[in-house]
Amino acid sequence: MQITKELIDNTHNHISQWLRTTALDYSIELSEKTGVNVWLKKEYQQFTGSFKLRGALSCISQLNQEQKDAGIITASSGNHGLGVAMAGKITGTKVTVFLPANTSKVKLTALQHLNANVIVVDGDCLLAEQQAAELAKEKGCYYVSPYNDPYVIAGQATLAMEIHQQLPNVDAVFISVGGGGLISGIGSYYQENKLETEIAGCWPENAPALLKCLEQGKIIEVEEQPTLSESTAGGVEQGSITFPIAQKVVDKCYTVSELEISQAMYALAKYEREIVEGSAGVAMAALMQQAEQYKGKDVVVVLCGKNIGFDKWLQVIEQYEDQ
Amino acid sequence: MQITKELIDNTHNHISQWLRTTALDYSIELSEKTGVNVWLKKEYQQFTGSFKLRGALSCISQLNQEQKDAGIITASSGNHGLGVAMAGKITGTKVTVFLPANTSKVKLTALQHLNANVIVVDGDCLLAEQQAAELAKEKGCYYVSPYNDPYVIAGQATLAMEIHQQLPNVDAVFISVGGGGLISGIGSYYQENKLETEIAGCWPENAPALLKCLEQGKIIEVEEQPTLSESTAGGVEQGSITFPIAQKVVDKCYTVSELEISQAMYALAKYEREIVEGSAGVAMAALMQQAEQYKGKDVVVVLCGKNIGFDKWLQVIEQYEDQ
Repeated sequence: MQITKELIDNTHNHISQWLRTTALDYSIELSEKTGVNVWLKKEYQQFTGSFKLRGALSCISQLNQEQKDAGIITASSGNHGLGVAMAGKITGTKVTVFLPANTSKVKLTALQHLNANVIVVDGDCLLAEQQAAELAKEKGCYYVSPYNDPYVIAGQATLAMEIHQQLPNVDAVFISVGGGGLISGIGSYYQENKLETEIAGCWPENAPALLKCLEQGKIIEVEEQPTLSESTAGGVEQGSITFPIAQKVVDKCYTVSELEISQAMYALAKYEREIVEGSAGVAMAALMQQAEQYKGKDVVVVLCGKNIGFDKWLQVIEQYEDQ
Repeated sequence: MQITKELIDNTHNHISQWLRTTALDYSIELSEKTGVNVWLKKEYQQFTGSFKLRGALSCISQLNQEQKDAGIITASSGNHGLGVAMAGKITGTKVTVFLPANTSKVKLTALQHLNANVIVVDGDCLLAEQQAAELAKEKGCYYVSPYNDPYVIAGQATLAMEIHQQLPNVDAVFISVGGGGLISGIGSYYQENKLETEIAGCWPENAPALLKCLEQGKIIEVEEQPTLSESTAGGVEQGSITFPIAQKVVDKCYTVSELEISQAMYALAKYEREIVEGSAGVAMAALMQQAEQYKGKDVVVVLCGKNIGFDKWLQVIEQYEDQ
């Protein structure tokens, strides 16, 4: 299944009623510092604090009544889980979320507040995913993958449509990459609409799974180190459709160090007074690193989420105090 | 001139095309902590980071062509100046902003980026205001007051209309008060539409100018102390129309200490991951102080701005670290 212009347009028509149009703001100070015309796509303002609602709504919008009645299932204690739960609440669809045993109470409360049926398994993320998939199979429910699903990707693509409406001529879009759902969606939109915008994928050096796959020309296991960009960490599952799409739509690949991520998070706090999570810092860090080659160009940085524990964020920021 | 329903509706029709609809978000964690259903009106997401754009656009929208050609004038290095400059840029109206000598380079740059004609006087705010008013008189230009103008108030009233559309039934709205433009606008909207919503005015103990006037039944000089809520500080000018309007529309008056303001700013950072200025903290602080009497009610807290120096904000927040 291709992520065609038609699919993206239809998806937008189905789900835009439930979405917030998030701000695309020109940053005076970051533009001055970098020499680039820096446009910040503040997608962390989306309901649940990340872009994940888009893909989840897109999945639900194409279910038939029988499937809707059966409800949907996913496994995630992070942004994806929140997005799916919120999509269920908005559309009146029953949602079951499987969680690992170590899920924090804050995340549990947030999911329950969104009326999700929460099942905490006696084990880790992988076990939660396995049990979720098993239950979905057994009950004939739709299992919402965080990235390996054309409807999820088409949903994330609506973010690019929004950017395009807000700023028609964009030289490049910087996007943090995890499983590849967001960059596949954004890249497909620009390619399908025959726009000359460069799609720049951004990875933490510590968690470059899809990048290594692209370099090797196949999906491989990649060992990763801990990173501030928790929501983009993790491997790419075998057969994921994001792999061939990324091969086709990603023009540039940049990696950033943990230090650069934290510097970018500090810059967004200091100059924009915005608290963002590490994954948003990755895209900002990549542009700061590559500023020289984008001087005078209009570049959009997708700030994809803000779900970071405040104390953790503060630790990152305090390193730079009084500098 | 009355702030009638018709005036507010007309104003909304004229200016809404240029405004961002800012989020009204239910806060799960602040609601849990207070027992109140806490709704945050995130007006700091407005262009220029505060509500001031509304009143400025409202003024411009009622000028005739001759007045537009002559341009408008104001004096303010703060949120009002930014709002007026942005309104000028959006509508193609020439704007001159008078500034005191000690205006920071960051604020100067921001105003210049909005194409404002900036005049720095050799003196303080008062001198800047005097010279601005003189030039306006001499040139026959419209002088945009930060609060003492029915069109400014009608512009701020559109914020209430937005809240009403987002959440039809609200028990109370908490609003920080400086010159009284915002609370006059919001209060007029709810009163003119015969809604039973309580209008709660919130002041720093250190800067209660309009509150003292209301208590005395006349506009008086009030001595103020320094406050974190810089943008609400300052006296109320003689004859200000916000005084009789506030007499009519304000139902409750609350004052908060500097400690309570900083605690509220910390709570917004920790539980909502939002950076707001002191004036926004005042309204949040008042609700936290008065939570007992609003248990189970739907209360909107207007978070009116985010223009605070980051280093200053960080100092406020760090007092509460690891608590």
